Amino acid sequence: MTFSAYVAVVGGSNPSDDELGAAHAIGYELARRGALVVCGGLSGVMEAVCAGAKEGGGTTVGLLPGDDRAAANRFVDVALATGLGEARNTIVARAVDVVVAVGGEFGTLSEIAFALRAGTPVVGLGTWELRRRGRPVDAIVAASSPRDAVETALRLARGR
Amino acid sequence: MTFSAYVAVVGGSNPSDDELGAAHAIGYELARRGALVVCGGLSGVMEAVCAGAKEGGGTTVGLLPGDDRAAANRFVDVALATGLGEARNTIVARAVDVVVAVGGEFGTLSEIAFALRAGTPVVGLGTWELRRRGRPVDAIVAASSPRDAVETALRLARGR
Amino acid sequence: MTFSAYVAVVGGSNPSDDELGAAHAIGYELARRGALVVCGGLSGVMEAVCAGAKEGGGTTVGLLPGDDRAAANRFVDVALATGLGEARNTIVARAVDVVVAVGGEFGTLSEIAFALRAGTPVVGLGTWELRRRGRPVDAIVAASSPRDAVETALRLARGR
Amino acid sequence: MTFSAYVAVVGGSNPSDDELGAAHAIGYELARRGALVVCGGLSGVMEAVCAGAKEGGGTTVGLLPGDDRAAANRFVDVALATGLGEARNTIVARAVDVVVAVGGEFGTLSEIAFALRAGTPVVGLGTWELRRRGRPVDAIVAASSPRDAVETALRLARGR
Repeated sequence: MTFSAYVAVVGGSNPSDDELGAAHAIGYELARRGALVVCGGLSGVMEAVCAGAKEGGGTTVGLLPGDDRAAANRFVDVALATGLGEARNTIVARAVDVVVAVGGEFGTLSEIAFALRAGTPVVGLGTWELRRRGRPVDAIVAASSPRDAVETALRLARGR
Repeated sequence: MTFSAYVAVVGGSNPSDDELGAAHAIGYELARRGALVVCGGLSGVMEAVCAGAKEGGGTTVGLLPGDDRAAANRFVDVALATGLGEARNTIVARAVDVVVAVGGEFGTLSEIAFALRAGTPVVGLGTWELRRRGRPVDAIVAASSPRDAVETALRLARGR
Repeated sequence: MTFSAYVAVVGGSNPSDDELGAAHAIGYELARRGALVVCGGLSGVMEAVCAGAKEGGGTTVGLLPGDDRAAANRFVDVALATGLGEARNTIVARAVDVVVAVGGEFGTLSEIAFALRAGTPVVGLGTWELRRRGRPVDAIVAASSPRDAVETALRLARGR
Repeated sequence: MTFSAYVAVVGGSNPSDDELGAAHAIGYELARRGALVVCGGLSGVMEAVCAGAKEGGGTTVGLLPGDDRAAANRFVDVALATGLGEARNTIVARAVDVVVAVGGEFGTLSEIAFALRAGTPVVGLGTWELRRRGRPVDAIVAASSPRDAVETALRLARGR
């Protein structure tokens, strides 16, 4: 079992339909391209990306905040109950070659921030935009579509 | 030993002189108002806020990423070597009533994000500004001065 | 991808030849019986169990203490760099249905203790024996052979 | 605020009266000797050691597993809600110069194991005894009384 890259796909548990569709397409495409899909294992974007990845014949890992792996969505192959609460976000962000963020709330922002802190590149699709003292900080690479997000992510993963 | 509030002051290890001055003033004022100052325990903003807090007669806690508490700055009273790496940021953000962010890089952003995720209010002074899909997200309460940051933080802490 | 059980196999990085042989046999047998093998991902017992599991056609997960998944042994399918240091032992112990301990030093003892604390059953083969105030505490189920360890572990996993 | 040593006192939440008395005496004596007392912050041995330390004029830190510092016993000066669950035991064991174990269950065993793994000395009073393959492993330094536990702990702390 080898993978072309480890890619985390992060996003909220209450996404829009567009975000769900994008997450599904990203998961599918990542799987077709041989990447391991890592996520938080729960619902929303996490479930959509896993569903897409399984449809594409891929493998999915869910890093759960709680103690019970039964909380994982049904498209997670390897469900790891960390018992660490939200601190599991630091593992999601660190364990991969690149992070793709789709929409998302504050939990997603924490995963983006941890990835950037660890030097892991981040690709964003309709997600957070960062500014400091009135000026944009171009740390998140904006993608124009799910396919572009996957292309960009895999290119950045190879560059590491 | 009782405290009016637990306040984390977060910021980068390579701050500007203005940020150092602000952090010192915030630490001093928090101490005068009876708050416990919690930080990451290292240099830069973390050291300045601890120096200010000690000058103000307060108590300081440093949550260190590494294994050796000798890494703490000399103004830390209680230095806890967590051995968790950057995951210690999740504790800094969660253990307090309110977070004050002064400038800062991606590590600071992760502390802000974790605090917001946990429902801990965040006061900012010249720090990150958040936007999503082209629109500002007003989750960080902007302060106009170190004194205002302390006033706002203690007011938000009481409201919890 | 579904598994009959999640089983952690834990043990030291400087095992005896007997322990290495036992770990290999346990990994092989677990894989043949459809279990997912979880371990710390490094050398010694961790490498031997992964090698056995791959020979048996199974899947292996390595939860690494450091930041770099290149540290994983070459028989790990899914290598997760947690960045948590030894605190990653708490995940190894908690994420599974049952723990099998083969020999081992203090790190292994910490995984045993965490599993018992979490209510996860532990099977031991030539590993730690626990006593308190002069009396044995029969918390670790002793196995007489690698095959017996696997049988016992899978039986205990089903009972949960 | 400086301390002669950082000492963790660990033990169960359902101790005997003897263990409670011992924990109180250890806390008192550690405080009189200028040590910072670190513990898990909850009830039982953790509460007794904090009560003793406060009676002796000392300072106490409680590293809590949950998200709410209101769970701390009332003798904790600095209560840090880690949100890490039982993984907070790794911090208790690592952040100090020496660990004193009084009685205790599996949680205490995990703290002992983590300390030994990290090279932190452990002093035991009526606590776990370790054996491997039928032979005692003399890693825990047995104390004969609360006073002896404190003497031994502070001597070991100085030797580091």
